[in-house]
Amino acid sequence: MQKRIAIIGAGPSGMAQLRAFESAREQGREIPEVVCFEKQDDWGGQWNFNWRTGIDAHGEPVHSSMYRNLWSNGPKEALEFAEYTFDEHFGRPISSYPPRAVLWDYINGRAEKSDVKKHVRFSTAVRWVQYNAETETFTVTVEDLVARTTESSEFDHVIVGSGHFSFPNVPEFAGIETFPGTLRHAHDFRGAESLADKDVLLIGASYSAEDIGVQAYKMGARSVTLSYRSRPMGFDWPEDMTEVPLLERFDGSVAHFIDGTSKHFDAVILCTGYLHHYPYLPSDLSLDSPNNVYPDTLYRGVVSEANNKLFYLGAQDQWFTFNMFDAQAWYVRDVILGDATLPDAAAQRADIDRWLARFHALESAAEEVQFQADYIRDLIEQSDYPMFDLDEVVRIFLEWKKDKQENILTYRDAVYPSVMTGTMGAVHHTPWLQELDDSADRYLAH
Amino acid sequence: MQKRIAIIGAGPSGMAQLRAFESAREQGREIPEVVCFEKQDDWGGQWNFNWRTGIDAHGEPVHSSMYRNLWSNGPKEALEFAEYTFDEHFGRPISSYPPRAVLWDYINGRAEKSDVKKHVRFSTAVRWVQYNAETETFTVTVEDLVARTTESSEFDHVIVGSGHFSFPNVPEFAGIETFPGTLRHAHDFRGAESLADKDVLLIGASYSAEDIGVQAYKMGARSVTLSYRSRPMGFDWPEDMTEVPLLERFDGSVAHFIDGTSKHFDAVILCTGYLHHYPYLPSDLSLDSPNNVYPDTLYRGVVSEANNKLFYLGAQDQWFTFNMFDAQAWYVRDVILGDATLPDAAAQRADIDRWLARFHALESAAEEVQFQADYIRDLIEQSDYPMFDLDEVVRIFLEWKKDKQENILTYRDAVYPSVMTGTMGAVHHTPWLQELDDSADRYLAH
Ligand SMILES: Cc1cc2nc3c(=O)[nH]c(=O)nc-3n(C[C@H](O)[C@H](O)[C@H](O)COP(=O)(O)OP(=O)(O)OC[C@H]3O[C@@H](n4cnc5c(N)ncnc54)[C@H](O)[C@@H]3O)c2cc1C
Ligand SMILES: Cc1cc2nc3c(=O)[nH]c(=O)nc-3n(C[C@H](O)[C@H](O)[C@H](O)COP(=O)(O)OP(=O)(O)OC[C@H]3O[C@@H](n4cnc5c(N)ncnc54)[C@H](O)[C@@H]3O)c2cc1C
Ligand SMILES: NC(=O)c1ccc[n+]([C@@H]2O[C@H](COP(=O)([O-])OP(=O)(O)OC[C@H]3O[C@@H](n4cnc5c(N)ncnc54)[C@H](OP(=O)(O)O)[C@@H]3O)[C@@H](O)[C@H]2O)c1
Ligand SMILES: NC(=O)c1ccc[n+]([C@@H]2O[C@H](COP(=O)([O-])OP(=O)(O)OC[C@H]3O[C@@H](n4cnc5c(N)ncnc54)[C@H](OP(=O)(O)O)[C@@H]3O)[C@@H](O)[C@H]2O)c1
Repeated sequence: MQKRIAIIGAGPSGMAQLRAFESAREQGREIPEVVCFEKQDDWGGQWNFNWRTGIDAHGEPVHSSMYRNLWSNGPKEALEFAEYTFDEHFGRPISSYPPRAVLWDYINGRAEKSDVKKHVRFSTAVRWVQYNAETETFTVTVEDLVARTTESSEFDHVIVGSGHFSFPNVPEFAGIETFPGTLRHAHDFRGAESLADKDVLLIGASYSAEDIGVQAYKMGARSVTLSYRSRPMGFDWPEDMTEVPLLERFDGSVAHFIDGTSKHFDAVILCTGYLHHYPYLPSDLSLDSPNNVYPDTLYRGVVSEANNKLFYLGAQDQWFTFNMFDAQAWYVRDVILGDATLPDAAAQRADIDRWLARFHALESAAEEVQFQADYIRDLIEQSDYPMFDLDEVVRIFLEWKKDKQENILTYRDAVYPSVMTGTMGAVHHTPWLQELDDSADRYLAH
Repeated sequence: MQKRIAIIGAGPSGMAQLRAFESAREQGREIPEVVCFEKQDDWGGQWNFNWRTGIDAHGEPVHSSMYRNLWSNGPKEALEFAEYTFDEHFGRPISSYPPRAVLWDYINGRAEKSDVKKHVRFSTAVRWVQYNAETETFTVTVEDLVARTTESSEFDHVIVGSGHFSFPNVPEFAGIETFPGTLRHAHDFRGAESLADKDVLLIGASYSAEDIGVQAYKMGARSVTLSYRSRPMGFDWPEDMTEVPLLERFDGSVAHFIDGTSKHFDAVILCTGYLHHYPYLPSDLSLDSPNNVYPDTLYRGVVSEANNKLFYLGAQDQWFTFNMFDAQAWYVRDVILGDATLPDAAAQRADIDRWLARFHALESAAEEVQFQADYIRDLIEQSDYPMFDLDEVVRIFLEWKKDKQENILTYRDAVYPSVMTGTMGAVHHTPWLQELDDSADRYLAH
């Protein structure tokens, strides 16, 4: 009997998995029945912008954490698909940091080209997954959010591609319950326009804090204060942007920091990261990890140790994104097709432990990027996904980090060469700081 | 074997159910094993305030829609428990419109007194409920959100008390995705302080719009505009509060209404109601209804027609609240204990149809209140819950409506007599409009 495969989520990871199976089919392979369940009415995951916050039109948690004005925060040359290049999609060079809508267009382009939409059940939320040891299958229960009907069916494999930047991590701070200004987590941030002339406090010292801070500056915030727990980001911030140590408590609208300083704020945005959260999975199958580049219990970063018929895509913290998901999806496909064989449990554990040991010894961001490149190389070697120059991508990441260090307001104006085609990114028609229209139309104009 | 009963949610409804069983036990009855699952770390449901919005610390949707400054919007004399009076709890007269924390204290007081906390599994979310026709039991799968472990067990009956004012109904409006000001649903509103000096738009014409509008006025909003779909509320609004017809579209920060008028806004709050949403139930068991006083498919408003072993509490739109939940819980208890017998399916349907016919013929709010009083009377007649003067409660509701019509800013200063004890409400030490401290301490001071 034909195997049945469930993919949960049609974000970049789920779409990579659909493409991986399709690529095998194009080569004449017989592929299993693949059903991808996506709770939104379109694919693209985080890249599928939603103006809603909190709960969506069907009562489901809103998935995307992206905002209107989001642009890529890393060079597109670092995420390019090895088998569907920017040249192929856009037909001409574009800049290295496109806005959200343009990157959505790119991932959509590859998926449309390989005609995999027919495998996706949109507006369908996975409610519960149960493994049956006797039949060695998973019962996947889903709800069609439009028809409002529930149904269950059996699958031989389940591939989790539901992302891990959607359920906000929201710490408690003394006095926060009576802070009178506007208060939200970055997950619910949709645009910085309303921060004009405001004193804005961002808690956290990673990508969300950095980029929302810069957005607030761009939109004319009176002041932007960034509060860090472990260490400051240390960029050469423009005037009116300051880093301070951790928030201790609120007293009305006044925030007190652990260094004894204090300041009044109109708006607070918690940029405190996200939780791995899989409410449709029983705890013995559910990945429970902090956000890092090597979550434990996943062999080769994708195969669930608890049940080798269950896979996770994109569960790592992400320097690499789209092409890492590809490398994972191609490997998962080959495990399912039987082209790649899994070692026994002890060998899986030993392999995970080897990677974990190396992961724990990492001492800098540069080493972490190299680690992720090596992880991806190891994966690509297992499948027929086109190998690409991962060391060149590492070099681009390091250049990117240098550019940011030099000027956090202008780093998005830099351009890099494609690792896949050599094409140099085009200098954009408008410097990022001056551009107030984030649409694809505007970006692709000229 | 002892029956097992699962109660989902420890809000006022679930707490009423716990109390109902305990009341039978006190009378020497043998009662089944009762387990109440509550996803929050305390009981009280909506009355258990949470400063968080959207997603909570465990990745679950935040339940409560209440805000810091919420006070009862109906007289407490209309919701008094017939078997645990305000006199008994507070030991002295209090005013008729207490703030949130004081009403929480009252429901907490009854539940603590009857020692039912031991039946509640706090911080435990119900994930999935499956009925097994062979065993005639429900498998209830829950997650302990602190231990992060999932477990399943069998129950003979399931009682849904998870509320229906938690999943916001958020309509789409043209241009809303680029509205640059602050935008949220009433579910995520936590306080009006940040609306000072702002032009505020509220969409909806029911309790949330009315009360959040008045809160915004109280906190010094520059203007408050209320946009209605069906009909204006028609109160004698203070200056700077206006009702306008339905919003048609946004153009940046400017809202255009269907009467052709338009206005700039800094903040928009969607007061557009809530969805019945039971993500842990398969669709054949899940109540699917608009918010009204007689949702179809529930015999006597509580017994699921689809499966008579499944019950819903508090599923109605609510004029009456706490004492209606009591009437329902006592009846459900008696059905489970076998003291009340259910007629066959056809007779259940005929009874539902009779009530629905009457419901559809209702022509005014006054008639709706009377309808709900009659519904409750019918329920109380089936159990040993103390009957009380429901017509007197109807009279109080009508007086309340008159008070609001006269002055929407001062109606909370009126007092009413207890239907249970005759005690007259005490005139409060501070008129509501002048009171800026909503705490129980301040309220109970003097
Ligand atoms: C604010 C933000 C900005 C980012 N910016 C960049 C960037 O500039 N460049 C970059 O390369 N990466 C960026 N990322 C990283 C991003 O995570 C990846 O680019 C990518 O979107 C991850 O893909 P994914 O498919 O693994 O997960 P997601 O994109 O999160 O997609 C998961 C999908 O699963 C669906 N889903 C979830 N639960 C269910 C369910 N129960 N049933 C059915 N479907 C479900 C969701 O609706 C969604 O479509 C950003 C992330 C965030 C949060
Ligand atoms: C903004 C607002 C103001 C209100 N003001 C008043 C007022 O002034 N006076 C008045 O009489 N009534 C008021 N109400 C009406 C209110 O609905 C009732 O007073 C009462 O809270 C309803 O009780 P309940 O137990 O049915 O539901 P809820 O109070 O909603 O409680 C449901 C409980 O179920 C839990 N739960 C939900 N899902 C799960 C799950 N999957 N697993 C485990 N637990 C779960 C929740 O955490 C919650 O504790 C107000 C309602 C709202 C929304
Ligand atoms: N395209 C873009 O412009 C853009 C914008 C935003 C986000 N993103 C992407 O979104 C993803 C998530 O990024 P993120 O920044 O939201 O999350 P993140 O990288 O996981 O960072 C979380 C931050 O929150 C801090 N934090 C956690 N708990 C805290 C607490 N209790 N008190 C104080 N600080 C606390 C952490 O500090 P510690 O270091 O002390 O742990 C860390 O600085 C990344 O993939 C990123 O690239 C992209
Ligand atoms: N204690 C308090 O002060 C307080 C405060 C707030 C709420 N509450 C309680 O909370 C509960 C819920 O009240 P609620 O007001 O949030 O909800 P509600 O009573 O269900 O009212 C929903 C409102 O939204 C409108 N609406 C729905 N869809 C719309 C659309 N697409 N466009 C425009 N308008 C739309 C409805 O208009 P139509 O009439 O046209 O359908 C109605 O006016 C009630 O029990 C209430 O008592 C209490």
